[in-house]
Amino acid sequence: NSKLKIFSLNSNHKLAEDIAESIGTKLGKCSVTRFSDGEIQINIEESIRGCDVFVVQSTSSPVNENLMELLIMVDALKRASAKTINIVMPYYGYARQDRKARAREPITAKLIANLLETAGATRVITLDLHAPQIQGFFDILIDHLRGVPIIAEYFMQKNFNPDELVIVSPDHGGVTRTRKLAEYLKAPIAIIDKRRPKPNVSEVMNIVGNVEGKTCILIDDIIDTAGTITLAANALMDVGAKEVYASCTHPVLSGPAMERINDSAIKELVVTNSIALSEEKQGGKIVELSVAGLLGEAIIRVYEQQSVSMLFD
Amino acid sequence: NSKLKIFSLNSNHKLAEDIAESIGTKLGKCSVTRFSDGEIQINIEESIRGCDVFVVQSTSSPVNENLMELLIMVDALKRASAKTINIVMPYYGYARQDRKARAREPITAKLIANLLETAGATRVITLDLHAPQIQGFFDILIDHLRGVPIIAEYFMQKNFNPDELVIVSPDHGGVTRTRKLAEYLKAPIAIIDKRRPKPNVSEVMNIVGNVEGKTCILIDDIIDTAGTITLAANALMDVGAKEVYASCTHPVLSGPAMERINDSAIKELVVTNSIALSEEKQGGKIVELSVAGLLGEAIIRVYEQQSVSMLFD
Ligand SMILES: Nc1ncnc2c1ncn2[C@@H]1O[C@H](COP(=O)(O)O)[C@@H](O)[C@H]1O
Ligand SMILES: Nc1ncnc2c1ncn2[C@@H]1O[C@H](COP(=O)(O)O)[C@@H](O)[C@H]1O
Repeated sequence: NSKLKIFSLNSNHKLAEDIAESIGTKLGKCSVTRFSDGEIQINIEESIRGCDVFVVQSTSSPVNENLMELLIMVDALKRASAKTINIVMPYYGYARQDRKARAREPITAKLIANLLETAGATRVITLDLHAPQIQGFFDILIDHLRGVPIIAEYFMQKNFNPDELVIVSPDHGGVTRTRKLAEYLKAPIAIIDKRRPKPNVSEVMNIVGNVEGKTCILIDDIIDTAGTITLAANALMDVGAKEVYASCTHPVLSGPAMERINDSAIKELVVTNSIALSEEKQGGKIVELSVAGLLGEAIIRVYEQQSVSMLFD
Repeated sequence: NSKLKIFSLNSNHKLAEDIAESIGTKLGKCSVTRFSDGEIQINIEESIRGCDVFVVQSTSSPVNENLMELLIMVDALKRASAKTINIVMPYYGYARQDRKARAREPITAKLIANLLETAGATRVITLDLHAPQIQGFFDILIDHLRGVPIIAEYFMQKNFNPDELVIVSPDHGGVTRTRKLAEYLKAPIAIIDKRRPKPNVSEVMNIVGNVEGKTCILIDDIIDTAGTITLAANALMDVGAKEVYASCTHPVLSGPAMERINDSAIKELVVTNSIALSEEKQGGKIVELSVAGLLGEAIIRVYEQQSVSMLFD
């Protein structure tokens, strides 16, 4: 059985440590720094020859820096004779650029898949892709995990009365995820149906489903500038919701996000640590759940499955 | 004959404009900006279907941002049916990471070549690669231009007396380039031979060649933190040189570079615009020469050569 090694790059060091701890091991030794001119310098400080290597890196902001760290690390691991190079990418950056919505647009989510394969990745473990179709952008194996069970577990501990609870999707795209959370919590769903009655007239928030007097839990995959989610929360309160929780897997939280959330009707924002929160984002309304156990379990399964399949090689 | 289009990304917009002007055309319309979370957003604002497209971008600092802009642009051009996608990369970043000097190092210069090909580049035009071997990292065509003639032309205008002139290489690696400049200026060469007499003893600068009473011109490909070049200049003055000019193709000039240059014996530092100089670096001892004409000529040759070879297809 070849050895398991986990390395962390710079996007999410704490999560990587927690993953290693969850499976009873320690992170491999490496340093990922910058030369004076900003070029990335990587030193892998222990032998990885013949090992099953897992590299933990989200391509969150600074996305281009984090992506290049990952590509260069994969190149170094390949040239150092790793047996397999598995990328643990809790947040897959550029996932929203997954199709040509207009002429002459790039499909950057596909480009990233190609770049990872070119560098030498042999497998990718990721979480709540913005579009599940991105799995098909890879010719290597990809394991697609879900954050909903972790979010559901948190809300189950609140012991809401299912009759006074409703799970709300902020748009039509998120209904499957919303239904999943509703199943865990045995609650009905509602959908926010944004409509622009005429061009250049502002959007109207129609709410499909009964939310009056109820505790609402909004769920999305990514919260970025938080425009959609805060408008949704306020619209729910306007039509008589009792209180509004919001949740997502990936707290991108860029630009005006924190201000919008603080100023909104949202009572608590429940997120995972797929993206590390900078210090000024921690606390306040934000509750952070850990995906370390989930990713640790996935790593062990991948590692053991590979060893099992070797029996047939 | 298919149409020629030149696009600029963000590393070196002025150079791109000068290149377009030198061949009597205008830059293609595109915008390269950032989404709120820092992801790159590219809009190509005119049709390029069936065109021979040239994209001007140096992978200078911020190297990872500039590289990702380039890869995403190439992806967008490919999907918009460009006939050929030619990268004009005056400065090739990560060129110093061109071999495994120690165990478990990446070879990032090769990784970059692979990434460019994966994205869809069909040809690369570049200038003074740190190691000419990097040409062999590509399976697509690569045109490797030289900055020495432009630097030589500048110094020829100074009408130095060849008997009082010597061209100096700051290390053994740069002798070929030094000899080339010396041929243009009909001057002899000298070489700085850095030696560490014993481990943990500081380096001694031996100068091979006669520099006493002479005007010295140091030449290198890259000046980064300017340690080597300023030590060399001071060593030349210490052994009786009359004055010291320094020159290079790629003014990386990171970290302490500007301070070192200003405090050194260097009289003038002659560089090219392969890397755009930030405002605080302009003027003072620095003289900037343009490679726009050289690159414009290369673009025309590539463009016409492709048309010619098509006659035999
Ligand atoms: N980082 C980003 N921030 C905001 N919008 C983006 C980003 N990346 C892509 N987009 C846009 O978001 C749209 C896709 O989002 P969606 O409809 O939610 O899948 C595309 O039309 C993109 O132009
Ligand atoms: N951006 C950089 N800044 C400083 N040193 C670098 C950089 N990239 C690579 N190197 C180192 O420079 C050495 C190669 O430089 P050279 O001997 O001049 O070809 C390698 O051993 C690298 O470790």
